[in-house]
Amino acid sequence: MAADDNDFTPVRIPAKEVLPPVTISPAARRNLSTGAGNPRMNWPPASDKEAWRRHVANVDPAREALFTTMLEGVKTPIETTQIGGVPCFDCIPSGHDPAAGPVYLFVHGGAFVAGGGVFAKAVGGRAADMIGARVVSVDYRMPPEDPFPAAPQDCLAVYRALIETVDPARIVVGGSSAGGNIAASTILMIRDLGLPLPAGAVLLTPEVDLTESGDTFVTNAELDVILKGGLPDCNAIYADGHDLTDPYLSPLFADYTKGFPPTLVQSGTRDLFLSNSVLLHRKLRDAGIEAELHVWEAMPHGGFLLGDVPENAEIQVEVARFIRRVAG
Amino acid sequence: MAADDNDFTPVRIPAKEVLPPVTISPAARRNLSTGAGNPRMNWPPASDKEAWRRHVANVDPAREALFTTMLEGVKTPIETTQIGGVPCFDCIPSGHDPAAGPVYLFVHGGAFVAGGGVFAKAVGGRAADMIGARVVSVDYRMPPEDPFPAAPQDCLAVYRALIETVDPARIVVGGSSAGGNIAASTILMIRDLGLPLPAGAVLLTPEVDLTESGDTFVTNAELDVILKGGLPDCNAIYADGHDLTDPYLSPLFADYTKGFPPTLVQSGTRDLFLSNSVLLHRKLRDAGIEAELHVWEAMPHGGFLLGDVPENAEIQVEVARFIRRVAG
Repeated sequence: MAADDNDFTPVRIPAKEVLPPVTISPAARRNLSTGAGNPRMNWPPASDKEAWRRHVANVDPAREALFTTMLEGVKTPIETTQIGGVPCFDCIPSGHDPAAGPVYLFVHGGAFVAGGGVFAKAVGGRAADMIGARVVSVDYRMPPEDPFPAAPQDCLAVYRALIETVDPARIVVGGSSAGGNIAASTILMIRDLGLPLPAGAVLLTPEVDLTESGDTFVTNAELDVILKGGLPDCNAIYADGHDLTDPYLSPLFADYTKGFPPTLVQSGTRDLFLSNSVLLHRKLRDAGIEAELHVWEAMPHGGFLLGDVPENAEIQVEVARFIRRVAG
Repeated sequence: MAADDNDFTPVRIPAKEVLPPVTISPAARRNLSTGAGNPRMNWPPASDKEAWRRHVANVDPAREALFTTMLEGVKTPIETTQIGGVPCFDCIPSGHDPAAGPVYLFVHGGAFVAGGGVFAKAVGGRAADMIGARVVSVDYRMPPEDPFPAAPQDCLAVYRALIETVDPARIVVGGSSAGGNIAASTILMIRDLGLPLPAGAVLLTPEVDLTESGDTFVTNAELDVILKGGLPDCNAIYADGHDLTDPYLSPLFADYTKGFPPTLVQSGTRDLFLSNSVLLHRKLRDAGIEAELHVWEAMPHGGFLLGDVPENAEIQVEVARFIRRVAG
């Protein structure tokens, strides 16, 4: 809370119950309804690394079954490989020339601490299916063993290796949630090192502000049924003592007048990270960077997660359109 | 409430107090704070036309002083005139050729029932100042005397007259709030009559759904300090018994695959009409219409209204950029 908060009058919101709106698909309404009873996620304190190891070890097997089912639906052949010494899932639709582009370098989400392995493989494959392009999904290192800056450094190593065979003008770097943070951070590192920029950035409901200063961290704290409240402990164990306002940790605070590729930013009106998204979009625009914003009605963080939801497919349609336009 | 709402589980929001966020300008924070104590606007029931006449007669003089002050700050010369037989304020920046374009045909807001005269003149002049282009602000007819479809018919008459001397490819039609509704409705009429479309549409926090079905009519009902709750009585006295889902009354329900010009849609994360804005943006995109969305952090309906607020100026910068791109 800022020192001068006492100077301002708060808006008083009465207790209320909010149903899913009629303006979204039945599948999306069911998702909001299913999520309404979700408990707030309970992460260990950042100081207790042993507790984090136990937590991740407990959580992962339960999720793995879900992600394995997701993976079984993927049509694109996926090669588990290393690129630039970093484990990757290289998803190349049948008949595509892997060097001919576009290539979507994708950074999975998972609050900086989860989502590697089978999840990274499944979301990479699904993106390749829907976009019809090669997707390289990076299985980057994570805390507690490997905090910041391991993740963007891994993605940077993949990018450096990729551009030996692929024209950077055919590469789009993107990610979802924590992956949107790491993708933006990677591009800032690429820029600051003087490497050729990729053709575009795709930042899906990105956690670009680890200080969580945006308005919707308050206004959407309960409305977002996927991400109830912020992730200060995940942010802290990732940051590992670094200043949270470092632009490589919180890309919202970067200076975009120094350059950034055309960017697609996605969010939803119930997304805890809606403020992250609109603030970043405005910052890019104000710096003269081409940036487009897409916000879906009543959508929480990460989309309407479960099942076959038309709104989720619409996101992929916009991403595909963007990738083809900037890198096609 | 839809018949099947009982099938869904609501999200339970506890009572809370929400301060202005630290992520907006001090002037914007003061605006949210000043607005926090605003009462809900009290309109007469739509059935009582005499009460509406008294209400407007009481409200207008108080506002007129404010708008006169606003008008005194305008630099652009303004001619009070008639175009196509409709009263207009023709705001032509010094040295501009009125036929050389771009021309911004602007439809003022005011819940369909207010905002004519000095307000329409002041906002037209201010837009011309900030955009550096000719602005024609329409002083259209309003209820209770002249309900729908008088307003879009007036704007249509102005457009028909304008295109006798100005290339339609140099004209952008736009408006704010109820004016965004009327602007969109006018363009749909232009299209359906087979007239040449304007070069673009600017829809600022538009009331494009008179059924008010969007999610943020609930989620932002108290957060929006400018527009607390919906405007069902204003919508009803404007609609005058017509079906609210008629696309000329609720342009959200129009079929955009039949054509619409490139469109800029603006809103804010605390805007009651955020759902209107994002739903319309998606509908345009899904119909293959070029449309860009701009959402400002914590902004209520109509912008941070009072005083010199940087975020309000940013809206005009985006509008100016858009107008120059599509009609420059």
